[in-house]
Amino acid sequence: MSNTHSATPVRELGADSPAKGLICRNCNATYDLIAQHACWQCFGPLEVDYDQAELAKVTREQIEAGPQNIWRYAPLLPVGVHPEDRVSLNPGLTPLIDAKNLAKALGMRKLWVKDDSANPTHSFKDRVVSTAVSAAIKLGFDRFACASTGNLANSVAAHAARAGVPSIVFIPHDLEPGKIVQSAIYGGKLVAVQGSYDDVNRLCSELTETDDFETTAFVNVNIRPYYAEGSKTLGYEVAEQLGWRLPEQVVVPMASGELLTKIHKAFEESAEIGLTEPGKVRVFGAQSAGCSPIADAFAEGTDVITPVKPTGIAKSLNIGDPAAGPYAIEACRSTGGGMAKVTDDEIREGVRLLAATTGVFAETAGGVVVATLRKLLESGQLDPEAETVIYNTGEGLKTLDAVSSLVGPTHTVKPSLKAAKEAGLLES
Amino acid sequence: MSNTHSATPVRELGADSPAKGLICRNCNATYDLIAQHACWQCFGPLEVDYDQAELAKVTREQIEAGPQNIWRYAPLLPVGVHPEDRVSLNPGLTPLIDAKNLAKALGMRKLWVKDDSANPTHSFKDRVVSTAVSAAIKLGFDRFACASTGNLANSVAAHAARAGVPSIVFIPHDLEPGKIVQSAIYGGKLVAVQGSYDDVNRLCSELTETDDFETTAFVNVNIRPYYAEGSKTLGYEVAEQLGWRLPEQVVVPMASGELLTKIHKAFEESAEIGLTEPGKVRVFGAQSAGCSPIADAFAEGTDVITPVKPTGIAKSLNIGDPAAGPYAIEACRSTGGGMAKVTDDEIREGVRLLAATTGVFAETAGGVVVATLRKLLESGQLDPEAETVIYNTGEGLKTLDAVSSLVGPTHTVKPSLKAAKEAGLLES
Repeated sequence: MSNTHSATPVRELGADSPAKGLICRNCNATYDLIAQHACWQCFGPLEVDYDQAELAKVTREQIEAGPQNIWRYAPLLPVGVHPEDRVSLNPGLTPLIDAKNLAKALGMRKLWVKDDSANPTHSFKDRVVSTAVSAAIKLGFDRFACASTGNLANSVAAHAARAGVPSIVFIPHDLEPGKIVQSAIYGGKLVAVQGSYDDVNRLCSELTETDDFETTAFVNVNIRPYYAEGSKTLGYEVAEQLGWRLPEQVVVPMASGELLTKIHKAFEESAEIGLTEPGKVRVFGAQSAGCSPIADAFAEGTDVITPVKPTGIAKSLNIGDPAAGPYAIEACRSTGGGMAKVTDDEIREGVRLLAATTGVFAETAGGVVVATLRKLLESGQLDPEAETVIYNTGEGLKTLDAVSSLVGPTHTVKPSLKAAKEAGLLES
Repeated sequence: MSNTHSATPVRELGADSPAKGLICRNCNATYDLIAQHACWQCFGPLEVDYDQAELAKVTREQIEAGPQNIWRYAPLLPVGVHPEDRVSLNPGLTPLIDAKNLAKALGMRKLWVKDDSANPTHSFKDRVVSTAVSAAIKLGFDRFACASTGNLANSVAAHAARAGVPSIVFIPHDLEPGKIVQSAIYGGKLVAVQGSYDDVNRLCSELTETDDFETTAFVNVNIRPYYAEGSKTLGYEVAEQLGWRLPEQVVVPMASGELLTKIHKAFEESAEIGLTEPGKVRVFGAQSAGCSPIADAFAEGTDVITPVKPTGIAKSLNIGDPAAGPYAIEACRSTGGGMAKVTDDEIREGVRLLAATTGVFAETAGGVVVATLRKLLESGQLDPEAETVIYNTGEGLKTLDAVSSLVGPTHTVKPSLKAAKEAGLLES
């Protein structure tokens, strides 16, 4: 946060932004830019509605002149055009890695890894939390909160610490130890809920209705529309990093399905407003077999999601009742993409393969994406000749337990040349 | 790595670089840019020797037009001016954070945190490994290796994976589990040595003399001069991020002491060659009480280091026989700086305080720096009115065990509003 303009009068949310309000994804009812996530008329999910003419004024040069983080895309977001409005760890502009060795291993012509573990708290959640809490302050909230499978908890607690704002984050009690310690270390309240993520989410929805939580912003509940928009930057960034070109195929991990729909939206939007040439990006969704309600609905040819009780090692994707599932299915269908699910063993092998070929150590969600990529190539759904981007959304250090049985020292020796010789280290 | 100039003939190490050779820090004997780390005449340590006139030609504009990573400083380094010569994960340009809340907590006027946990493998080691392995390829080596307390092992293994080069890394057998898994996941050989870091280091020195390791580059042993230069970027970056100004005080963690001496060198050099205004930066060194040979020698007014057997939680700093100790002492003395050492409890509290005030979760080495900062303020050695930069060199997720007893969920509840009420969550 910069305080250089602290004398400037406080602007309302949306001032100098292309966002003109909220719109229901279901019935198209419109609302002002308020703290609301579900339509009062049909209960459909709300999202930010933009003035297309304003979006179309944004130029490549304007973006390129911006900061080296997500805020370079602020002219395409509902908040953050003015630096002093940003409540942020300044995530973004994470590496887009030319994954030559992985492409070769999989028989692909051109493969990129978008590595969002490079964000400040090491997941893509820093993007959505930055847009959410920046909006929250504008909307008059004075405490940050979330329901989380871990990565979001880390990010909300860290954003609150940097901003000096109280926080209260809710997590399932059985998360990976790393994610628990990382959320707790920043201070603030950390509530372990004895239930699944979906239980945590329900509890948070109930809490938003209480007087005690009236000024608490649950980033992914009562201010969800502003949160979700942060994910758009993962589409725009890839386009910019490719030299303002769209890739031909992308593979995206799915929990709620929201990330995939927003990346898809960013690609469509960037072509519509002329930042990139028109082009169709085939969008593919990845889930773990332990929690695959979206991939299963896709496979069955329906868009009705049947909630499941999640299991398996890809805990950051374990949302059994995914709110944006139908929209993710629509994005994959409409672009000629697809979906697949992979087992825990395939996920572990995906983590290992990615690390060994790119130097990127991903959390299990990244393993889901690599394993899904492989599966979609084997089934012929994904074209090995088409330029492809896969998204790694989190850090391997957060899910060490999942792979610690897989790898370890290859040799153990006493500290002597003799011992090294006996261990075979001198036969290179 | 870019392959855009793959048709260009291979240049020798040092071509188009300001580096003119190696020079003995002790007796000033000079050498060509070869794979050598100790002086043949006096056994003193060698470092890269530059043509000052060439360095002085480097401009701010030239650097600012470079890439968003350490290679923008390539004109000041022995290798990497040409993009195709870089064997690298492209670390650097990590955040310099205006630590307002921490400054306030400690009664300081202006405090910055240089957060090098943002590098690809989440420590400053990516900087030194990038310069070392780029030089190694030029010098004809075909395998990357190191002796490591963990962070370096992670970085060498990841660099090797990205470059498609074999690696063999040596670590003490009792490292934090995170650092072991993170090094192993990238593939390559990982040798757990049943001894201390100093034992590991001795074994590696012996191995470099064997025929089987003739073409193996131990980044911090036989090509150490090129490795050490990477640390200079941590000085230049801070100067550039401050708007080409020098800070008044810095606090740097010490293991071998090399990082501190190179940051000091970068500040002196940047003023000498006109990239910044002349200015004296008071340099302070931080060690843990479990391994404080440099701080102890400083306190005793000597520059003779008495080796120790390291203990304590700051494992990444646990070098009992620190090669650059005397030079670190000289840097602190000559600038009117100082040194201090801190206990494990103070280190833990330092990690917690940094996280709670800045949103930066540091490994124990970062806790050492924050605790030392506090101690130097209390003793009056550090001026609270002077603009200060502290260096966090690693990631908290790598040393979770050290703080896991300190923090955890503040509440545990069943997933119901009733349970939340009973737990006192509705009395905000």
